[in-house]
Amino acid sequence: MRSQQSVRRKGAGTRPWLVISDSGQSHFEEIGKQMIMQRTGLPARDLRILDPVLTYPSSILGRERAIVVNLEHIKTIITATEVLVLNSKDPLVAPFVSELERRVSSFSETRLNQTHGTNVYIPENRSNAARVSDSKVLPLEFKTLEVCLQCACRCLETETSTLVQAAYPALDELTTKISAFNLERVRNMKSRLVALSGRVQKIRDELENILDDDMDMAEMYLTDKLMHQQCEEIVSEDKIDDYNDIFDPDYKRDNDLKSTKSSSSDRTGLKPNVEELEMLLEVYFAEIEGTLSKLSTMREYVDDTEDYINIMLDDKQNQLLQMGVLLSTANLFLNMAIVVVAVFGMNITIDLFKSNHAEFMETTFGTIVGCIFLYILAVCFGKKRGLLE
Amino acid sequence: MRSQQSVRRKGAGTRPWLVISDSGQSHFEEIGKQMIMQRTGLPARDLRILDPVLTYPSSILGRERAIVVNLEHIKTIITATEVLVLNSKDPLVAPFVSELERRVSSFSETRLNQTHGTNVYIPENRSNAARVSDSKVLPLEFKTLEVCLQCACRCLETETSTLVQAAYPALDELTTKISAFNLERVRNMKSRLVALSGRVQKIRDELENILDDDMDMAEMYLTDKLMHQQCEEIVSEDKIDDYNDIFDPDYKRDNDLKSTKSSSSDRTGLKPNVEELEMLLEVYFAEIEGTLSKLSTMREYVDDTEDYINIMLDDKQNQLLQMGVLLSTANLFLNMAIVVVAVFGMNITIDLFKSNHAEFMETTFGTIVGCIFLYILAVCFGKKRGLLE
Amino acid sequence: MRSQQSVRRKGAGTRPWLVISDSGQSHFEEIGKQMIMQRTGLPARDLRILDPVLTYPSSILGRERAIVVNLEHIKTIITATEVLVLNSKDPLVAPFVSELERRVSSFSETRLNQTHGTNVYIPENRSNAARVSDSKVLPLEFKTLEVCLQCACRCLETETSTLVQAAYPALDELTTKISAFNLERVRNMKSRLVALSGRVQKIRDELENILDDDMDMAEMYLTDKLMHQQCEEIVSEDKIDDYNDIFDPDYKRDNDLKSTKSSSSDRTGLKPNVEELEMLLEVYFAEIEGTLSKLSTMREYVDDTEDYINIMLDDKQNQLLQMGVLLSTANLFLNMAIVVVAVFGMNITIDLFKSNHAEFMETTFGTIVGCIFLYILAVCFGKKRGLLE
Amino acid sequence: MRSQQSVRRKGAGTRPWLVISDSGQSHFEEIGKQMIMQRTGLPARDLRILDPVLTYPSSILGRERAIVVNLEHIKTIITATEVLVLNSKDPLVAPFVSELERRVSSFSETRLNQTHGTNVYIPENRSNAARVSDSKVLPLEFKTLEVCLQCACRCLETETSTLVQAAYPALDELTTKISAFNLERVRNMKSRLVALSGRVQKIRDELENILDDDMDMAEMYLTDKLMHQQCEEIVSEDKIDDYNDIFDPDYKRDNDLKSTKSSSSDRTGLKPNVEELEMLLEVYFAEIEGTLSKLSTMREYVDDTEDYINIMLDDKQNQLLQMGVLLSTANLFLNMAIVVVAVFGMNITIDLFKSNHAEFMETTFGTIVGCIFLYILAVCFGKKRGLLE
Amino acid sequence: MRSQQSVRRKGAGTRPWLVISDSGQSHFEEIGKQMIMQRTGLPARDLRILDPVLTYPSSILGRERAIVVNLEHIKTIITATEVLVLNSKDPLVAPFVSELERRVSSFSETRLNQTHGTNVYIPENRSNAARVSDSKVLPLEFKTLEVCLQCACRCLETETSTLVQAAYPALDELTTKISAFNLERVRNMKSRLVALSGRVQKIRDELENILDDDMDMAEMYLTDKLMHQQCEEIVSEDKIDDYNDIFDPDYKRDNDLKSTKSSSSDRTGLKPNVEELEMLLEVYFAEIEGTLSKLSTMREYVDDTEDYINIMLDDKQNQLLQMGVLLSTANLFLNMAIVVVAVFGMNITIDLFKSNHAEFMETTFGTIVGCIFLYILAVCFGKKRGLLE
Repeated sequence: MRSQQSVRRKGAGTRPWLVISDSGQSHFEEIGKQMIMQRTGLPARDLRILDPVLTYPSSILGRERAIVVNLEHIKTIITATEVLVLNSKDPLVAPFVSELERRVSSFSETRLNQTHGTNVYIPENRSNAARVSDSKVLPLEFKTLEVCLQCACRCLETETSTLVQAAYPALDELTTKISAFNLERVRNMKSRLVALSGRVQKIRDELENILDDDMDMAEMYLTDKLMHQQCEEIVSEDKIDDYNDIFDPDYKRDNDLKSTKSSSSDRTGLKPNVEELEMLLEVYFAEIEGTLSKLSTMREYVDDTEDYINIMLDDKQNQLLQMGVLLSTANLFLNMAIVVVAVFGMNITIDLFKSNHAEFMETTFGTIVGCIFLYILAVCFGKKRGLLE
Repeated sequence: MRSQQSVRRKGAGTRPWLVISDSGQSHFEEIGKQMIMQRTGLPARDLRILDPVLTYPSSILGRERAIVVNLEHIKTIITATEVLVLNSKDPLVAPFVSELERRVSSFSETRLNQTHGTNVYIPENRSNAARVSDSKVLPLEFKTLEVCLQCACRCLETETSTLVQAAYPALDELTTKISAFNLERVRNMKSRLVALSGRVQKIRDELENILDDDMDMAEMYLTDKLMHQQCEEIVSEDKIDDYNDIFDPDYKRDNDLKSTKSSSSDRTGLKPNVEELEMLLEVYFAEIEGTLSKLSTMREYVDDTEDYINIMLDDKQNQLLQMGVLLSTANLFLNMAIVVVAVFGMNITIDLFKSNHAEFMETTFGTIVGCIFLYILAVCFGKKRGLLE
Repeated sequence: MRSQQSVRRKGAGTRPWLVISDSGQSHFEEIGKQMIMQRTGLPARDLRILDPVLTYPSSILGRERAIVVNLEHIKTIITATEVLVLNSKDPLVAPFVSELERRVSSFSETRLNQTHGTNVYIPENRSNAARVSDSKVLPLEFKTLEVCLQCACRCLETETSTLVQAAYPALDELTTKISAFNLERVRNMKSRLVALSGRVQKIRDELENILDDDMDMAEMYLTDKLMHQQCEEIVSEDKIDDYNDIFDPDYKRDNDLKSTKSSSSDRTGLKPNVEELEMLLEVYFAEIEGTLSKLSTMREYVDDTEDYINIMLDDKQNQLLQMGVLLSTANLFLNMAIVVVAVFGMNITIDLFKSNHAEFMETTFGTIVGCIFLYILAVCFGKKRGLLE
Repeated sequence: MRSQQSVRRKGAGTRPWLVISDSGQSHFEEIGKQMIMQRTGLPARDLRILDPVLTYPSSILGRERAIVVNLEHIKTIITATEVLVLNSKDPLVAPFVSELERRVSSFSETRLNQTHGTNVYIPENRSNAARVSDSKVLPLEFKTLEVCLQCACRCLETETSTLVQAAYPALDELTTKISAFNLERVRNMKSRLVALSGRVQKIRDELENILDDDMDMAEMYLTDKLMHQQCEEIVSEDKIDDYNDIFDPDYKRDNDLKSTKSSSSDRTGLKPNVEELEMLLEVYFAEIEGTLSKLSTMREYVDDTEDYINIMLDDKQNQLLQMGVLLSTANLFLNMAIVVVAVFGMNITIDLFKSNHAEFMETTFGTIVGCIFLYILAVCFGKKRGLLE
Repeated sequence: MRSQQSVRRKGAGTRPWLVISDSGQSHFEEIGKQMIMQRTGLPARDLRILDPVLTYPSSILGRERAIVVNLEHIKTIITATEVLVLNSKDPLVAPFVSELERRVSSFSETRLNQTHGTNVYIPENRSNAARVSDSKVLPLEFKTLEVCLQCACRCLETETSTLVQAAYPALDELTTKISAFNLERVRNMKSRLVALSGRVQKIRDELENILDDDMDMAEMYLTDKLMHQQCEEIVSEDKIDDYNDIFDPDYKRDNDLKSTKSSSSDRTGLKPNVEELEMLLEVYFAEIEGTLSKLSTMREYVDDTEDYINIMLDDKQNQLLQMGVLLSTANLFLNMAIVVVAVFGMNITIDLFKSNHAEFMETTFGTIVGCIFLYILAVCFGKKRGLLE
């Protein structure tokens, strides 16, 4: 096996990883895919999730010796002893890195103090003092996970606020003036809103999935698992010969299932401990739900605005049509007047043509007044039938 | 550890908290964040949920030694011995505070009576008498939680009623007269409706989550946990030396996992007790569901009204268009009449021009009657084809 | 404790309850809230659900000694020995009461027969005979619960049928004639449909919740719990002194948790029995689902009708607009004719004016035929471009 | 009890049932409701589900001694030894009956072969041979259940195909020509689609529910339960006297719970066997999901078509309005021309009237050309502003 | 039994299967349905899922001795020792086959190396080396399953990308120009989108179902089950006689349930091992969710575009109607002018007719200016009332 490992292609798929050790010191390392797999115990499959070329949705995977975190721009592998960060020079990732370094180094100091001072794990102490500094004794993996979640949540919260602040004026403007420009702007916002909601929802679902499955959470206690394993290895070395003698026929199978069993007993033993992680995740779950509810409120507002615009447009359309009907009616009676007047313009001679000014006036005003009277009648009739307002 | 606690920054982030002890007495205290964390065993993370600046959604978190309640305006930390209320001068929180004080003091009186009188916990008594006064022997944390839920539910119920009472007339008015003012009013109501539904839904989901998870509920039995712990500490002090002698190799790990185990056995032992809390939460869950169903019924009503308005507008539009068609048809035949009449107004001399009054009348009325006849024909045709009503 | 009970305010909040004992006899009783709480072991909270003033949604709550049923108009508390019915004079509740009395009395007769005759519980008998009369040996609480569910389901089914029978003709009428009256009628039906669906859905959800949780169902075996408890009390009286001697230090806590334990063991022991209740609920669950599916089918039909009306209105609108275009085109050419004819009506003298009848006819018919020709050309062009049909 | 059974009303509610025994022979029997209840151990409640008058949704209920199947038209009670089919003369049920007879008789032959030949249940045989003929050793109840599901699925699949084949052409025709006839046809299809989806969905949900609950599936192993019970009865007869002596005080209750316990132990013991039924149901679940997905794809297609028609109608409406605007504009300028020409038709004498042919032509063509020029200008302006295309 | 197998109809329903053994060698075989059932232990029912004629949705079924995979075009039966591929000449399946051959042969080489070299299963080794080559020690069935999932995911991802790349330009084109062609194109895309989403969703649901049920996953450890069974058979042969002697009365039943019990104990023992498969499926679940989220984002974009088009069309419609109103108003005043002018064309003689050029001009321009003035007034009034822009 060892020989096989040494022939791995060192140059293939190397990437610059920022390595932050549990003492808080960080440095860049060019690490190949095979090397990462060896260092973290991850299969090639899991590394693909971090690939910046492929666009995997946000996910947090707890594995045997590492947690793979892909939250928005943050692509990290967390082990019990170090944190590997990809794309660390991305300006969106920078605040995450600096925050992580700050916390880890303060954490390693605290730990030093603790181990040099009194041992905090003596039971009676724990009930008084240790709980107070609860947030300080989180193991490296949860410390890091918290920073990841905090940065991702803050980043999404910021994006949401920006979007919300831009969207409400745009929508209000659209209701006052419907133009292609305003429509296009609102449509862009809707696209951004949908995309952002999808991303927030994805993280929310991911957290919910982890919170629902105690086994998944237990899997993430990397430090505990490491300590447990080290203890067991010491013990098992002493006992391994004896076992072989006693259960000979099943020996091969027993070995085969060993790691399974031990990890199973691990879980059963560690189950209640999950509370620590559960409490951590719950808070960010609440935060991300707050963000999501803001987005869905905005989504509802956008939809309501569209409904409002539609009703408004339909109503205006009807007003315009009413105006059209009023005008058509007026035209109708004007045309009548034209007919009447044109009749008198016919060249078929009648006695009236020889009459004087008075008759002219009578004819003219009779026609006009008649038309106006008919028009008023028509409009009143329309209003009575509810067609016109 | 003790020295570390004493150097905490006392002035940083202090806020005025109203402290209500289990004897029902309340007083204001300026407490810093660090002090709160120490007093309640909560990590900094959980306190953020109560931060009035950030707008976290409603949530109820059961922790080791405290319940964090953030329901609408009520922001409270409940421990087994006291209740810490934030923002207690807010007029929306005031009724909550006074109700809480009233209940807690009556509760502490009852408790005094009980402990001074006969011991209520003798089994045969319990089946007869104790159950009747069931609502009186709730521990402080549930007493407080009930007041929180009651106030939040009543508050939301009131808001819902107000909204519903305002909304139905507004909607009915909109159906009779579509105006920008009415539309804007309905739109505002819809926004409020969506926001309120979101808040009610959030509390409903929170209650459902707690009811679904027996562990979460068990976690909230603060008084029982406290009593249990005190018993155990007395016992464990006697036995701790013996343990160390017997299980030496695993001693360190054992200690490490101790608190875990004990809290685990706690749970298993307390599991059925959860019923008491379940019954309490179920009632408020039913109440909040009632509120939610009112809101969703209203939501449906709003949507139906919009559909109705849309159909009505479309129908009116068609009536207007029909009227337009009728008018256009009339204009058509008037124009025909004009053509006919204008033909006789041409200066090309024909014999007819020399005729007398009778011919003039024939021409005129012939034209007019012809046009009216054609118009009636056209309208009948339109009706037969189903285009006009 | 006893003294405390005697000082309860007897007159406060008394209501007339119809009490039906397990012998089938019923009588009215004016019972106060405190008395009810004492008689049924319910906290004040649970009684609020039955309050006719507040409008709680339908719910069924299994408590220590009683089942609280709030299904539509039926507001009942069921204990192992009697049934308390609120609002029993409401005409909607009357059939429920009479049915309940009938069943309970026939049930108590059967029971009498059974206990006076051969004992039916001898195993070998059970497999043959007892199962046949399975529906007769249900305990009082399930008997009553079944009547409650049956009445509620029948009531909702009737309402659904009435609504469905009224709705389909109304919808079909709306599609043939859109009028404010028809629209308003359909809108009313939709509101009723939504409200009814909500109520049916609520009962369905309630049944589903109970069916999903075996513990909730076990809680409802009031008769079994009562019998179990009586047995235990006899046993425990003998043994209670011995216990105290042996486990002295933990005595107080033990007592504290006693009721818990016993109820817990109850549950574990009773778990399989749940089948009886499950089978009962399943049937009404299927029935209520049938009702719900009818309502949702109708809902879909309403929505489809609205879509249909919208398309129809839009289509008619386009036909009207086409007619408008046809008329406008005709007017266009008539106006052209007017222009032509009016040109000859100008008083600028030309030679043509002196010509005779033939020229007049040529001019007139030339103009008219030209216009008609142009009109036909235009319409053909419009049809070719797909604008007109 | 025996006497009570003999007085049952024999003639009440008898129905013709087709009884298929496990030997594959079938005959008609007129069986009353009471008789069915006795024969199958079902309460009256469960029989109501099969009532052809009431329209219960599809459901499969596993009971103590029978499975009640109500799938579409198939209404059957399956016991471990016989199958009772209702409505067997319905042409929709006929293929089910003939298929069932065929399978059951071939099944009883196989069983005969097996029991007369070598015993197939010897373990080493099972791993080789028995598995191959796995589909042949299904007990009667699963055999029948499979035929029920197969017939119901096939029937729904056929209906779906028919609907789909009719719907797509109807939709495509609607897009080319919107007429009341086509609309009505599509609307009918939509109603059928909704109804069919509801039925398919109901069966899918029923299967999912059964697959989700191992207890429900275990309940359906009627043959195994029967065999188990027979074994136990033999055993219990020997031991029953001893029990009575030892546990006297609890004897009555013990008996009461006996059947419960035994069925409980049944379950625990049989649990893994559920796999056989699970595999059977899974396949039909996949099939029904395939049908459902076809229907929902069609539903989406219908919705898309409606959206498409709406956009198309709106677009055509705009084109018609544009044409209307073009015509109105033309009319505008024709009216202008009329004004101009009519001015020269006024009888107010000016010098121009005495001029000759040239002036007449100038005036006429000046007016006409001016109008056409203005019209072109107006249309260009409209196109530039984007109003006209 | 053996004799029965030999009489199976060899020629019935034979299909060409590509058989890939665990050594990586592949060859074609004509295998009949009965033969497949015997070779894989699958009932006829399960084979129907792979039938290319019926269109079953994607599904993965874990059975006793085989996994049935029906993912998109890939139709495969996987056993612990070989893989049977249907339709292997289909160009869509070809890449799957070549990839599978490549992987399986490299896998069998690795395995050879491992078994010939040092045994990798010694615990201390496992923690260092074995984990690194974790992806290499997957058993054949998971290797194959991974290739199936990888190919199906890649295929769907490609289709999604193609669709997305074609859809966005088509949508943007539609917003700029609504034509029947563009509409039809978008509608086609929507159909493809819906169909593709359905397929992706189906695979996602299938993976979720498997991930949710540990039993289903345990069922898929074919190699482990085979090894376990072989061990047990050796053991059981020794012990079988002893059992028979001791538990005689229950012997028959015991045997009957034997396979059940052993498979049950299998499961309990193997449960934790499920992790390996869970990790494999989780990654493809994340990948398929990524694809699904792309599709739903596109779906949202399509819906938003439609809303946008609808608002745009409605807005344009209103602009056209406004233009219509403007034109009608203009026509109105032109008609007025015509009336005025035509009045002076009447042949009723008045004094004005004898006047000269100045009066003519006054009349003409008075009329025209008056009309224009009224028109401007009307438009201003319209704008003030908000009807015109």
